[in-house]
This record gives sequence, C-alpha cells and structure tokens, in this order.
Amino acid sequence: MVESIPLETAKEVADAAEQRAEEIDNPMVITVANSEGNLIINRRMDGAWLASVDISRNKAYTSAALDMPTEDLAEPTKPGESLYGLQNTNDNNMVIFGGGYPLMENGDVVGAIGVSGGAVEQDMDVASSGVDRFDEL
Amino acid sequence: MVESIPLETAKEVADAAEQRAEEIDNPMVITVANSEGNLIINRRMDGAWLASVDISRNKAYTSAALDMPTEDLAEPTKPGESLYGLQNTNDNNMVIFGGGYPLMENGDVVGAIGVSGGAVEQDMDVASSGVDRFDEL
Amino acid sequence: MVESIPLETAKEVADAAEQRAEEIDNPMVITVANSEGNLIINRRMDGAWLASVDISRNKAYTSAALDMPTEDLAEPTKPGESLYGLQNTNDNNMVIFGGGYPLMENGDVVGAIGVSGGAVEQDMDVASSGVDRFDEL
Amino acid sequence: MVESIPLETAKEVADAAEQRAEEIDNPMVITVANSEGNLIINRRMDGAWLASVDISRNKAYTSAALDMPTEDLAEPTKPGESLYGLQNTNDNNMVIFGGGYPLMENGDVVGAIGVSGGAVEQDMDVASSGVDRFDEL
Repeated sequence: MVESIPLETAKEVADAAEQRAEEIDNPMVITVANSEGNLIINRRMDGAWLASVDISRNKAYTSAALDMPTEDLAEPTKPGESLYGLQNTNDNNMVIFGGGYPLMENGDVVGAIGVSGGAVEQDMDVASSGVDRFDEL
Repeated sequence: MVESIPLETAKEVADAAEQRAEEIDNPMVITVANSEGNLIINRRMDGAWLASVDISRNKAYTSAALDMPTEDLAEPTKPGESLYGLQNTNDNNMVIFGGGYPLMENGDVVGAIGVSGGAVEQDMDVASSGVDRFDEL
Repeated sequence: MVESIPLETAKEVADAAEQRAEEIDNPMVITVANSEGNLIINRRMDGAWLASVDISRNKAYTSAALDMPTEDLAEPTKPGESLYGLQNTNDNNMVIFGGGYPLMENGDVVGAIGVSGGAVEQDMDVASSGVDRFDEL
Repeated sequence: MVESIPLETAKEVADAAEQRAEEIDNPMVITVANSEGNLIINRRMDGAWLASVDISRNKAYTSAALDMPTEDLAEPTKPGESLYGLQNTNDNNMVIFGGGYPLMENGDVVGAIGVSGGAVEQDMDVASSGVDRFDEL
C-alpha cells in the first residue's frame, strides 16, 4: 500500500529542519516526499544553493524509493562494489550521499526527507532534526 | 536585474492560496518560484493530484519565464495562431492554460505562482488569492 | 560539407540584431548557429524573457536543421497537415513559429540566426536585421 | 536576493577571456551566466571543440548553482569522498573539473563564467582572465 503523511505533518517536519538550519546558520533546501517519492513539501531557504533544489528533492526520492538513508549508498556504489552504477539509474535521480532519510511509522516507510545546502554532515544533521520531529508526532 | 522574493513572503503567498483551496474544498498543489523560474516553495495538499505537482511547478516556471499569466497563452498557441508550438519549447516545461501568474513589485516580475488541482477556473481562483496576498505585503 | 561562419562574423550579425531590438525597444535573446545547428554565439539582452533563451537557440537549430525559415513550418505542422508532429521530433528542439532564418552563402546554408523575446513579428524583424547584415558582409 | 549582471558587463568579461584564449593560442567556448545559472552570453571561438559548448555552459551553471569554482569539486566527488555522486545530480549538468568560477560583487555571487576547450589548466587560466576583468569593472 502507498503510505503518505499529511501536509500539516510535513510542514512541522520541514519547520524543524528549517529551525536547525538557522541554528547552524546554513541555508538549506528541504523536501518531504511520500512513500512513492513524490513531493509533499519543498522549501528553498534564502541564499540556499540552486543545485540543492534538485539534490534535496532527489535525496527524498532516493530514500523513499529504496527505503533507506542515502548515506548507506555511498559505499556500495563505489567502483568495484556491488551497487556500482546505481547512481545512473532512475533517470539519474538517485543521490548517493547523506542527507536523505525515510520517515517510518510502525515499521513502515511512509515518506522521506531530503536536505541539501551544506557539507554532507550538515545536511544529515538538519535532515535528522526533521526525522526527530516526525518521530515525536 | 534578476529579482526574487524571500521564503517567508513565499510562505504567506502559499498560505493564502492554500486557505482559498480549502474554502472551495479542492486540494491543490501550490508553487512559488523566483523570477528565473526556480523553486522557492512547493506544497501538495492532501488528496491533490499527482499530475499537479509537475503542472503547478511548470505554471510558475512559465509565468516567470514569459512574464505573463499562463491563461494568456491558450489562444496564441492554438493551431494556426502565432505561437502555435510554444508548448513544445523549454523542454516541454511550458503550461499553456490558466493557473500561473507573475508576482510583480514596482513593475518588475520578481517571482511567480503556479496552482494546479482542479478545473482551470479553480486553479486561477486559488492562484489569484496568492497574488492578492503578495500585493498586500 | 559542414559549413560555418567565423565568430567575428557572428558577432556582427548579433550586433545588428541587438541594435534593431534596441530600436524597437524590445529586449531579445539572439543566437547564431553553424550549419549543423550548433552554437556560435548566444546573447540574452537585459530584461529578455528566460523562455527565450531556449526558444532563440532552437529557432537557430531548426533553421539550420531544415535549411528554411521557421515561419515556413507554422502551416504544415497544423493538425491534418503534412508535417503535423514535426514539432515533437529532434528531442522537442523544433520551433515552428517565426524568428529563425538560415544564413546563406553562394546558395549554401552556412549557419542560422534565431531570435526570441517579443511578438513573432518582432522576432522576425530583429532576426531579419541579422540576416541583412550577414548578406552585406 | 537573486542577482545578475548586465549584458554589456558580460561582453567585457567574455572579451577578456577570448583575448587570453588568443594569447595562449587555444580556441575556447566561453559562457557567462546569471546567479541562477541561466545564460547571459555564450561564444564558441573558431575551431573550439563542439563538446565544449555543453561543458562551458555547464561549468557556468555549476559555479552559479553551488557558489564555488568547479575545480573545488574534483576531490570531494571521487569514489569514497563525501560528495561522490554529485556529478549525477541536476540532470547531469554538473561539471566537476576546473574552468568555472563565480562572479562576486560585495561578497554575493551575481553570476558565473565557464570556459572549455583546452587542458583544464588552460580553461582555468582563460576563465580567470574573465574573472579578473569582472573584478576591475
């Protein structure tokens, strides 16, 4: 079954991520997608990189499409590893570095968050704030 | 000079459109873009059509890219009219029916709003609420 | 044989078109391509539509790719006419309204000019100024 | 706020790059884009590689989209490094080797230059001449 999360919940998740981005003083693009990788909400903070609009959206897509954090794809997509080439599938919409996380409810993936705009660790930090908020709701 | 609008302003514009969509009881996808057609905010209301994610985004793109409401493109792009074929340009990102409007400041286009999810008249109604809110700010 | 025109010549052609655009007070995007439809020069005048970057380039491409003015494609690509559907070929890079012209030398197409930014008649007017300049050189 | 630079300024920047390309006797494709990565000017010098039309444009896009020189992307996008896979984002329009630079005004990115046509060091040399000219204006 296709699961999703309500827009109001997605807004709260995005708000939490946006607040964390402000705390670390790094403008981000934040996307929340449903379990089929399609958009629920997308925000580009003032001054965030243009490139991050695509990357944020596709981190959410990738996490929803594979039910896993995007950081888990960095190793297995290296040349010689088992999933080398995955990054060229799905019309090149796969992102294989950190900043995308599934949103889970009772063990099911019901959506995903993708954040881009800083160093990968910062993207992961900000996206995690969104995940934490979702888990509290 | 290329212009844009702050995320906080874009949120208020999207809020006004979302409120109008609720009043007419028709879930919509709402996009606000900057003057170069790139995303600032994008929201899919619960139950809104999947197709409207693309259409909403591209209505905003089209309005920003041509400095005009998308409804103005319906007539001139008909077979036999002067802009027939415009709908196939710009990587098929042109939308030639109503629901996209430029956001103007001191006579300059500084962004655009695109709404999709209902009949074209409903899309235009909801998008106009966003424009009205922008003009008040 | 693939024919082309030197960059210096293309600049003079673009200058003539730009000057005409200023005379009619309508900012344009101007492209000169070689006989294979590939770019020699491309300029976006201040305030010209974003959509015109793609359209100008593809008017030049279309004229070079078919050895004819783009205005000649409007009629035959209408539903029911012989070339209906041509606008969807070549990765949708075909433009079927006026503003693209081949540049001819001794009866051979050696390049093309594409102009976009106003009403079709204005685009044709400005592009023609470029063709006229080329023919004088 | 989204920033841009006037066409006349972009021409002077391109002129400086073109002059440097002539000095080192290596024909180049030169692009100047605005801060949202969209084209202002694009020139292919006589004899410059066809491949460089795309590469020059996308070096400018990449620099504008990430606010950084493209040469800074070579290391972090290697297999095993933090941004491995970035090269497949943004519809494959990312270029991860040198020759693209942001154009800065009062600490803000207002545009970008991308140069392609020689060895990477030559591309960087020629692009830098454009940056230097911009900084003098």
